[in-house]
Amino acid sequence: MNRKVNIGVVGLGRLGSLYANYFANRIPEANLVAVSDVREDVAKQVAEQYGAKKWYRNYQDMLADDEVEAIAIVTPTNYHKAVAIDAARAGKVIFCEKPLSLSMDACIEIKNVIEETGAFFQMGFMRRFDPGYLAAKEKINLGVIGKRVQFKATSRDRERPELDYLRPENSGGLFVDMGIHDFDLARWLMGEVKSIYAVGGVLAYPEMKEVGDVDNAIANMYFEDGTLGVVDLSRNAIYGYDISTEILGTEGTVQVGYYRETPIQVMKENTISHDVVPGFYERFEKAYVDQLQNFVDNVVNDRPPAINAEDGLKALIIALAATRSLQENRLVELSEFTHVSAV
Amino acid sequence: MNRKVNIGVVGLGRLGSLYANYFANRIPEANLVAVSDVREDVAKQVAEQYGAKKWYRNYQDMLADDEVEAIAIVTPTNYHKAVAIDAARAGKVIFCEKPLSLSMDACIEIKNVIEETGAFFQMGFMRRFDPGYLAAKEKINLGVIGKRVQFKATSRDRERPELDYLRPENSGGLFVDMGIHDFDLARWLMGEVKSIYAVGGVLAYPEMKEVGDVDNAIANMYFEDGTLGVVDLSRNAIYGYDISTEILGTEGTVQVGYYRETPIQVMKENTISHDVVPGFYERFEKAYVDQLQNFVDNVVNDRPPAINAEDGLKALIIALAATRSLQENRLVELSEFTHVSAV
Amino acid sequence: MNRKVNIGVVGLGRLGSLYANYFANRIPEANLVAVSDVREDVAKQVAEQYGAKKWYRNYQDMLADDEVEAIAIVTPTNYHKAVAIDAARAGKVIFCEKPLSLSMDACIEIKNVIEETGAFFQMGFMRRFDPGYLAAKEKINLGVIGKRVQFKATSRDRERPELDYLRPENSGGLFVDMGIHDFDLARWLMGEVKSIYAVGGVLAYPEMKEVGDVDNAIANMYFEDGTLGVVDLSRNAIYGYDISTEILGTEGTVQVGYYRETPIQVMKENTISHDVVPGFYERFEKAYVDQLQNFVDNVVNDRPPAINAEDGLKALIIALAATRSLQENRLVELSEFTHVSAV
Amino acid sequence: MNRKVNIGVVGLGRLGSLYANYFANRIPEANLVAVSDVREDVAKQVAEQYGAKKWYRNYQDMLADDEVEAIAIVTPTNYHKAVAIDAARAGKVIFCEKPLSLSMDACIEIKNVIEETGAFFQMGFMRRFDPGYLAAKEKINLGVIGKRVQFKATSRDRERPELDYLRPENSGGLFVDMGIHDFDLARWLMGEVKSIYAVGGVLAYPEMKEVGDVDNAIANMYFEDGTLGVVDLSRNAIYGYDISTEILGTEGTVQVGYYRETPIQVMKENTISHDVVPGFYERFEKAYVDQLQNFVDNVVNDRPPAINAEDGLKALIIALAATRSLQENRLVELSEFTHVSAV
Repeated sequence: MNRKVNIGVVGLGRLGSLYANYFANRIPEANLVAVSDVREDVAKQVAEQYGAKKWYRNYQDMLADDEVEAIAIVTPTNYHKAVAIDAARAGKVIFCEKPLSLSMDACIEIKNVIEETGAFFQMGFMRRFDPGYLAAKEKINLGVIGKRVQFKATSRDRERPELDYLRPENSGGLFVDMGIHDFDLARWLMGEVKSIYAVGGVLAYPEMKEVGDVDNAIANMYFEDGTLGVVDLSRNAIYGYDISTEILGTEGTVQVGYYRETPIQVMKENTISHDVVPGFYERFEKAYVDQLQNFVDNVVNDRPPAINAEDGLKALIIALAATRSLQENRLVELSEFTHVSAV
Repeated sequence: MNRKVNIGVVGLGRLGSLYANYFANRIPEANLVAVSDVREDVAKQVAEQYGAKKWYRNYQDMLADDEVEAIAIVTPTNYHKAVAIDAARAGKVIFCEKPLSLSMDACIEIKNVIEETGAFFQMGFMRRFDPGYLAAKEKINLGVIGKRVQFKATSRDRERPELDYLRPENSGGLFVDMGIHDFDLARWLMGEVKSIYAVGGVLAYPEMKEVGDVDNAIANMYFEDGTLGVVDLSRNAIYGYDISTEILGTEGTVQVGYYRETPIQVMKENTISHDVVPGFYERFEKAYVDQLQNFVDNVVNDRPPAINAEDGLKALIIALAATRSLQENRLVELSEFTHVSAV
Repeated sequence: MNRKVNIGVVGLGRLGSLYANYFANRIPEANLVAVSDVREDVAKQVAEQYGAKKWYRNYQDMLADDEVEAIAIVTPTNYHKAVAIDAARAGKVIFCEKPLSLSMDACIEIKNVIEETGAFFQMGFMRRFDPGYLAAKEKINLGVIGKRVQFKATSRDRERPELDYLRPENSGGLFVDMGIHDFDLARWLMGEVKSIYAVGGVLAYPEMKEVGDVDNAIANMYFEDGTLGVVDLSRNAIYGYDISTEILGTEGTVQVGYYRETPIQVMKENTISHDVVPGFYERFEKAYVDQLQNFVDNVVNDRPPAINAEDGLKALIIALAATRSLQENRLVELSEFTHVSAV
Repeated sequence: MNRKVNIGVVGLGRLGSLYANYFANRIPEANLVAVSDVREDVAKQVAEQYGAKKWYRNYQDMLADDEVEAIAIVTPTNYHKAVAIDAARAGKVIFCEKPLSLSMDACIEIKNVIEETGAFFQMGFMRRFDPGYLAAKEKINLGVIGKRVQFKATSRDRERPELDYLRPENSGGLFVDMGIHDFDLARWLMGEVKSIYAVGGVLAYPEMKEVGDVDNAIANMYFEDGTLGVVDLSRNAIYGYDISTEILGTEGTVQVGYYRETPIQVMKENTISHDVVPGFYERFEKAYVDQLQNFVDNVVNDRPPAINAEDGLKALIIALAATRSLQENRLVELSEFTHVSAV
């Protein structure tokens, strides 16, 4: 019988609780042994609900617990750096939700500590585990669409999150918060980005102006091999959570994305309608489970992480470059950032 | 904390093993405590894989085990009657996979024992738990399509099962084996059937002639309230597992069914293609899990079964009537059967 | 330069006026020289609108006009026999809208006169000229779907026509009026029908009971080679004019039909919608034009008619058999009719 | 009866011949009286085919023909200026195919002469007459999608045209040749463009490098009111001619575009496929006819042109700005051009 991995989850918001559930009930090789949240009642309740033996108010106490072999970091992004570095130093196996951090410096610090300690560190970009994106990747690798030419990605939330969350100091801004998934896909499906130009504005929610972020944006880019990309983002797709991606090649195109949640269609006078995908849990449930399964499998089988801190850093740099382009209304070369990061 | 139900699974073929897996890993309120199969090595292996403490070669030994509160019957249909009756008499809570039995007499015997013993007995018609069918039922109940007028259902396997399975003494024939799901939906979404006329033939697999069953068939029917229905079945939908259903009303129509498994579409010279639903596990995975969850919930909360033996019997009668119509090439009234069943 | 065919149109209802328009403006080798309608003002107005030199109140006067080489019969069905026979005797080239007639006897009379006179006579079943059906026919002939196994056809009007039109003495009843297109497709795409069983009822429009016809019906059938068919009809597809057809084979399936009229889709909160095909003119405009073009081409190039009176008769017999099955609630063999027709 | 407009067509390439056909056969209020082409045999042949009484080798002779009231300019773009100016001075009513010209100066010259002479001058941007785009415009105007936020447009040819045509001195380059339709839609559906940034490259056809143009490009832009736009273009959509457009608003989105030419779908092992729209004639046939009908209607009823020379100029300026951005790899403000044009 396979060995099991004893896991602790740090941060029990909506996604953290879901991860606790998945580790407890959906990943056979995982034992959920502990959870941690600054809200002790939440920690206790989640521990009871999913059968974790221990709960902690302070993540450092959990890191000190020898029974905890691996941790999943699902805290607000601002805490990623501290938890990741402490966990690496404590010898823990680490899974970290996206984005790695909101600043390039923080990412580089994390990356350096991981390299020093030799810690196992896997980034969470769950789209890479979605059956649709996996199938697209496979088709591309098989040469089905010939040589890649354009990358097009759309990410749209149904409505804006809470204003407090949207402040750039919390979310990182639209490109870091939403776009980072698309930028990771861009790198995974196409290659490294060379330069980017972004337009954006407060077009749907006037209150975003006070927050200091935009609610709609479009960025186009050159990849290093000269191929082209475009990512468009919106907070106001009120018709449904809409994630769609296309890779156009010289011999065809692959499109990923869909709107219908359940296989039902209703046809009435003058309209044909069906339901829609309500949000990212529903759209990517399988991807979330498979991502955690992959993490545990890698640990159990001594395989390297599927997505590492370098990937976390590089996706962030694209998002930061897009953000800078938007702020300064000019073309931004990624070398402006990588120059610094090469230090 | 909720109490848990200790469950034993009888019959560990492909579906029985899946149920064992689901009880062990996906239904929080279920404990998989035992499994049973005449192939002892299979029983042992499944028990180990899903953490059941005990395995049995003989289902009666499992029924004698006081730790086993509930059993799921997933044996070949020919054994349903014996296992169900023994389980009812042993005081077990029972879940039974479709079809209830291949003969009306056997169904009535089971039903009588259930009534005598007062056993909790839930039939497995998983489509009633599919999000698509649930949404259709809800739309109809809300009056979205007005008054119901026509019921249309298509069920197609990608290819024929093993010849040995297809013999009518094992499968019950095309209408009992495949059509019973559609007949159950017909009752659930429309009401009771009054008469049926079926056409069919050996059109795709000549070897079916020796087996004594058809590989394609179409049955149309009157419901008791005068509304109309049609069910078409095929063993040769080589493009994919295709289950689609429509309820046409006076103010619109609801269609359930889809072809794509993953949200990817590939467009090449002269063709646009996407993958297909490969089979019933993939199409109805959520329905299978939700069906077992519902069964366990009903037990835990002292609710009556969602689908009972009467439903199992009535769907079978429609299938038998269709089969008789096919054999005798004449219109068959269901009263030919219900007359007998009223005894 | 090709010679032109001088054409007169008999019957200037909605479809007859459209045909006059098409002959005048869309079929280069046709000259619309005359039109005829018992409503003289209508005849005059249509003649002026489409540039026909002459108009007649009495079709016999048009038949006496030597300048009129060919006529298109678009009168109410009850007049088809008289006009067709007179036209054949007058030596005219004839195009006749479906159905050929409402009774088998009338069809046989027409057919006999055509054979005696050697008149060129082409039936109007425009679906055979629809790009979708033509492509389906071609795919089948190329062997793309293997051996044919099932024929499935759905025809739905958005709403019932005028009650007066619906009386069986005018329309022939649901199977003759709507189903005849599907029965013609059945013969064209599959082969001859052997037997049929039909269910139907007054389910959407209670006032149809006085009229003596049903508003919904489903007929299933055996073809002579043992393959299977089903046709379902409805007068209440209020979501749009819905014509869809499928031919299932041993190696795949071909589906013809669509809902969207214009390539626009609107996505709003909780719904994705697009417009629908409003009616048969919009759905089959190209087929109507191409059908008349084919008729004129056949005449100009001395080719035989694409669809002849025999086709008109045979489609009617299927419709009559379905109607008899519905009335007598029994299986009907087509030989009950062909016995008579063999006289 | 309405008066008819006597029309001459200048330039009888593929599109010019089609226009001659449409004026002769599809636009009732138009008389095709003359055609002109430097290839006299082509002019003669087209005249005979569509019943034009006269043909000319020299367009100036046609302009001198008093029977010709209106002309349609369908020559290579390089001749638009000369023909348009001569026609305006000759007092003709003018329809001019897109693009108005390849240079801003030429456009301004044409525009000035039209204003001086008071000539009726209608630009050809046929997409504005497509039922899909018309329906989208109507939905937007009705407020169905709320406030407009993003404009997204994709135009893809199935394969590159002849190299000789592609030289920027003939085609104007990718943005002028293909993108101008999308830029016109952008203005029509959203408003005036303020700035643009374009990426592009020779990614599919290496031989394009010698030609001096790119084969793929993406441009994003700010509109003057701060809303966002993106247009992506490709010469290598080998799966079909693909024109799709979306306008995202605060309360929904409207998508225009489709892939299927005929309503047929074929489902085979592991693939579901249907045909595709092969090219712009097939996709926009109705739009082409309706555009010419609109032109003739405007003339007959003394209405102003639906699309004027100003529209031709403004769409060109966006295309030129995109081209400059691509060449100089920098953000381009449209005011760089309008400053000049304001002279």
